[in-house]
Amino acid sequence: MSVAGADPPDWPPLEEVEEILGYSFADKRWLEEALTHASFRRQQEEAAAAAAGTSGGGVSYERLEYMGDCVLNLIVSREQFFRYPDLMPGDLTRLRAANVDTEKLARAALNHGLHRYLRHRKPQLGDQIEAFVEEIAEYPVHSNGLVNAPKTLADIVESLIGAVFVDSHCSVDTVWKVFKRLLEPIVEKETLRVHPVTELYEMCQKRKLRLEFKGSWKQGIDVYVNDQLAGRGNYESKKEIAQNRAAKDALDNLGKIVLLLEDGEDDQIVD
Amino acid sequence: MSVAGADPPDWPPLEEVEEILGYSFADKRWLEEALTHASFRRQQEEAAAAAAGTSGGGVSYERLEYMGDCVLNLIVSREQFFRYPDLMPGDLTRLRAANVDTEKLARAALNHGLHRYLRHRKPQLGDQIEAFVEEIAEYPVHSNGLVNAPKTLADIVESLIGAVFVDSHCSVDTVWKVFKRLLEPIVEKETLRVHPVTELYEMCQKRKLRLEFKGSWKQGIDVYVNDQLAGRGNYESKKEIAQNRAAKDALDNLGKIVLLLEDGEDDQIVD
Repeated sequence: MSVAGADPPDWPPLEEVEEILGYSFADKRWLEEALTHASFRRQQEEAAAAAAGTSGGGVSYERLEYMGDCVLNLIVSREQFFRYPDLMPGDLTRLRAANVDTEKLARAALNHGLHRYLRHRKPQLGDQIEAFVEEIAEYPVHSNGLVNAPKTLADIVESLIGAVFVDSHCSVDTVWKVFKRLLEPIVEKETLRVHPVTELYEMCQKRKLRLEFKGSWKQGIDVYVNDQLAGRGNYESKKEIAQNRAAKDALDNLGKIVLLLEDGEDDQIVD
Repeated sequence: MSVAGADPPDWPPLEEVEEILGYSFADKRWLEEALTHASFRRQQEEAAAAAAGTSGGGVSYERLEYMGDCVLNLIVSREQFFRYPDLMPGDLTRLRAANVDTEKLARAALNHGLHRYLRHRKPQLGDQIEAFVEEIAEYPVHSNGLVNAPKTLADIVESLIGAVFVDSHCSVDTVWKVFKRLLEPIVEKETLRVHPVTELYEMCQKRKLRLEFKGSWKQGIDVYVNDQLAGRGNYESKKEIAQNRAAKDALDNLGKIVLLLEDGEDDQIVD
């Protein structure tokens, strides 16, 4: 099934993606499949419904994304396994997660303009990408849980990884060669940051401070340290992000909190 | 660090594992690492504590197990990706899970006698394995959530997969060649079974029956279908297994349940 024939003129040719990747596909159908969203396929299928009764499976990117997710985990794990011979699985897992999470992959898609090649009929995608671009402007490398990355952007990177993998006769080395550059900067042991919620928990545990999150994430979350209001955060569409923003605010205030608690004052830290 | 020198005579030589695998290690240290449990390493380290101040990382199997887990996911995913070109990620995930879960891997270790080569100081392991052998006697292929498989048994398979992977210059094909046979019978689309809890939920949903699990898993779990006691199960050490056993019992009684409910009788199905 050829999808290319139905492209409206505003979708640039898929061959440009081969230039971005520095990889030429032996079978271009993998490339096409990797850049076809289910919404696009559905429209195509409706148009062809009368003609054929064959199975429509495998022509949008979900299967390649599934394969690519697995391959990505392997190449990153392997790299770090050899780079850090003393690191145990707990640390290796955290390091891998930072290099394969949705925000990291969405940034890679954006940095290399891969999203421009996705064939889709998902009108809201443009707005989601625009909002993401605005949000990450504050965080040049990684926000660590403070922004909402569109999953579709990350999917594109995974599906392209899957496509290069199957097209290269399942060569893990080829995939690493192609995608290492696209995933730069790779998060290393030295540059790994934890999410603010985790950092705040650890900090309070160390100092034996009582930590509480209150409020609803739709209206806003308040962080209390030993019953002192220490930080506030909100994010309408995702609880985890609202919590991280509140924790980040509390961490920024932590110096003040500790001083206040030592003085035994009851003033609120956050106005 | 050589571990072999301290082996008591009841541990058979590691070289036999190469015969079981049909793979000869270029660097035997990977094989040794894959079959060294942390409890064994600790004892070794205590003995050597006075002598050296170097890092002890990497000489028990956790790192290879981490790597092997990743490689196993990849080889199984790849196999099924090509075998089932029409299967979507949801089904592929379930199929993969059935081939890489703890019970499946523990059975593989047991079937090929791999557990006999693990260097450990974990006295309870022998009893755990014995109990497992007894429990699975009822289920020749897979119990689907009705027995408790010792994680250490599964770990051995994953760490050996990791060892073959790194020793073979990261050849995914070599790993698949070696371990396909050891993992037989591979669960295929046709032989895939869901866990009893899932099956019962789906069955009740289809027939619009109300399903409830009651009781504590330590004492025993009761399953009610439209307020009728339909099944019972217990398993002291794991809630999930107790629930699955109760659901299995209810499924075995399902014919009776449906008849009773149709007759509008109030008798209990389970005595």
